[in-house]
Amino acid sequence: MRGGGDPDLPARVFLTRVIEPGDEITGRWVRELGVAEVVRRLRDGERPLPGVSGRRWEGLRARALRAEPERDLDVARAAGVRFLGPGDVEWPRQLDDLGDARPLGLWVRGRADLRMWALRSVALVGARACTEYGAHMAAGLAAGLAERGWVVVSGGAYGVDGAAHRGALGAGGATIAVLACGVDRPYPRGHTELIARIAEQGLVIGELPPGDHPTPSRFVLRNRVIAALTRGTVVVEAAHRSGSLVTARAAQRLGRHTMGVPGPATSALSAGVHELLRGDAVLVTDAAEVVELVGAMGELAPDRRGPVLPRDLLAPGARRVLAALPGRGAAAAREIALGAQTTEDDAIARLYELRALGYVERHGDGWKLTRQAMISVRRPRSPC
Amino acid sequence: MRGGGDPDLPARVFLTRVIEPGDEITGRWVRELGVAEVVRRLRDGERPLPGVSGRRWEGLRARALRAEPERDLDVARAAGVRFLGPGDVEWPRQLDDLGDARPLGLWVRGRADLRMWALRSVALVGARACTEYGAHMAAGLAAGLAERGWVVVSGGAYGVDGAAHRGALGAGGATIAVLACGVDRPYPRGHTELIARIAEQGLVIGELPPGDHPTPSRFVLRNRVIAALTRGTVVVEAAHRSGSLVTARAAQRLGRHTMGVPGPATSALSAGVHELLRGDAVLVTDAAEVVELVGAMGELAPDRRGPVLPRDLLAPGARRVLAALPGRGAAAAREIALGAQTTEDDAIARLYELRALGYVERHGDGWKLTRQAMISVRRPRSPC
Repeated sequence: MRGGGDPDLPARVFLTRVIEPGDEITGRWVRELGVAEVVRRLRDGERPLPGVSGRRWEGLRARALRAEPERDLDVARAAGVRFLGPGDVEWPRQLDDLGDARPLGLWVRGRADLRMWALRSVALVGARACTEYGAHMAAGLAAGLAERGWVVVSGGAYGVDGAAHRGALGAGGATIAVLACGVDRPYPRGHTELIARIAEQGLVIGELPPGDHPTPSRFVLRNRVIAALTRGTVVVEAAHRSGSLVTARAAQRLGRHTMGVPGPATSALSAGVHELLRGDAVLVTDAAEVVELVGAMGELAPDRRGPVLPRDLLAPGARRVLAALPGRGAAAAREIALGAQTTEDDAIARLYELRALGYVERHGDGWKLTRQAMISVRRPRSPC
Repeated sequence: MRGGGDPDLPARVFLTRVIEPGDEITGRWVRELGVAEVVRRLRDGERPLPGVSGRRWEGLRARALRAEPERDLDVARAAGVRFLGPGDVEWPRQLDDLGDARPLGLWVRGRADLRMWALRSVALVGARACTEYGAHMAAGLAAGLAERGWVVVSGGAYGVDGAAHRGALGAGGATIAVLACGVDRPYPRGHTELIARIAEQGLVIGELPPGDHPTPSRFVLRNRVIAALTRGTVVVEAAHRSGSLVTARAAQRLGRHTMGVPGPATSALSAGVHELLRGDAVLVTDAAEVVELVGAMGELAPDRRGPVLPRDLLAPGARRVLAALPGRGAAAAREIALGAQTTEDDAIARLYELRALGYVERHGDGWKLTRQAMISVRRPRSPC
């Protein structure tokens, strides 16, 4: 566990086992009574607040009696999974926009700092049974976003999701899979290796505790996390009534950018996207157009304001990677990893964190210091 | 000539031979001095107003000395071509939105009333070298618009234009070709038969006098007439910097609806359309979506307000066709033509005029009286 010391953490672990993701009624209990008190009442069988039927209350009680939060934490720790609550420094603050539907906590696999990565992230979502065109567009957009230093977020599913994750990984980029099941229990089975690779080079996150399985409603509710975590959501291919449209509409409600990739008007798998584009979504055809929109402020910020966190406050791993960047010009992640005496995957994780903080930028396959970072490095040595 | 009696007509015919379409400088001369005076000065060699170079003035003078308006009118008449000026009852008033770039006059082949037809018209434009997908979409949209009683306007060119005209004709619908050359001299040559067929079942119109040939600038300036004549412009396929984008932007400037048909983001022939759709244009995938937009007011008007012109003021041909419609239910254009003792092409021309006036509506292949028209027919006979 990082950023520990949150006394609510065990209670939150308990609740992720008892309460379904995104439930706003129990979310209100937590807001009004606090997690510890909600846990106490669930354990003692004292109904916290009105809002659930007697039958549902019994269901929650039954789950509460079976919950073993310490065991969940042990299992997670053994599988390299950490648990974050809203008080954690690694917690992505933008999830607070979900109000009472905010996740109770997040289970995380992977070495990168989730909060840093999510600052500069875009969701790419779409049909599981996508066309070759959809897979081609998803992979191309993901690679283009990765090359521009953006983190690609998707749901780990077949089709568009998988193509997006692979596109980002293939470009040596950062990607986050948000699962609708325990992060130690990849779903779908056919993506076991892909999700393991994402956990190595990127992050695999989810609201469900270890070993939990996905359900149709969990898939739908998972989408709100994808929407809230990112600066914007791009729908690559989606039929009418597709789950990807749920993500897009959640993004719209949350004030995030919503984008769609056009396709032939004759393709049923583009019909849902076209429906969005006839509303407020913005048509995009390549990564540059996506970044033009989601980066409207952020793209310029590092140059204008300089790095957002003083160098001294960086974590030691990030500081080592920063020190390994050349004073001029760009270097590949592999060279930087050598200089920082770490693995390439770890170097990539730190580079994307440093990117979010305004220290470095990515150009094609190379990483270099931003102008502001160079000025702050050189100032002591160069008086002019 | 219909709607004659405009004393300016011969002078306007003269000017269509001397002045290039859409020229705003000479358009201002006409507005400030009147056509007769501009013609007099061109004939007498007296420079009307500042604004053109000496060299250009000499060019206009040379053309003026060669102009033979009476001969042009004779040639036109022999080819079944009439000439309309802005004072003509058949003049489409919406062209006045072009200001000083308003056509000096229009040469028209075909039996329908241009003003009536243009009231309920939509432009379908796009690439000459379109893909099969583009041709398929153009033909399908045109057929769908025709089946909904809308007139399809295009430029008579290869590719999207031709597919749009053919789609409308094939659905027994109304279509107008706006040419960038004399309407007696179809261009392109390969569309000679298509354009002759449009003149039979629809209308072929243009600003250039008989026998005149197209030039690159005439193609571009023709597009403003397509944009101004119609309620909205749909771009089906267009590369970056395509002439169809000129039409779409002219439509936008004129406050007309601008629409685009999406295609694969990987297709260069959809790139120009996507550029439009990233601006203010509306994405459309079928005729229903087009009509939803352009018909926003007009679709309901006939029912709300009844026919816009009293029955007694209809031209005799239109009155005969109206009388041939069944009191209940629908009839095909062929049956109506039989009842009105005219040809099917003439019946179609009148039916689309009556449609614009709110008397009839088209459902698939059948035509029927609107509810308002039936009430106005039956009132004398049925007191209830």
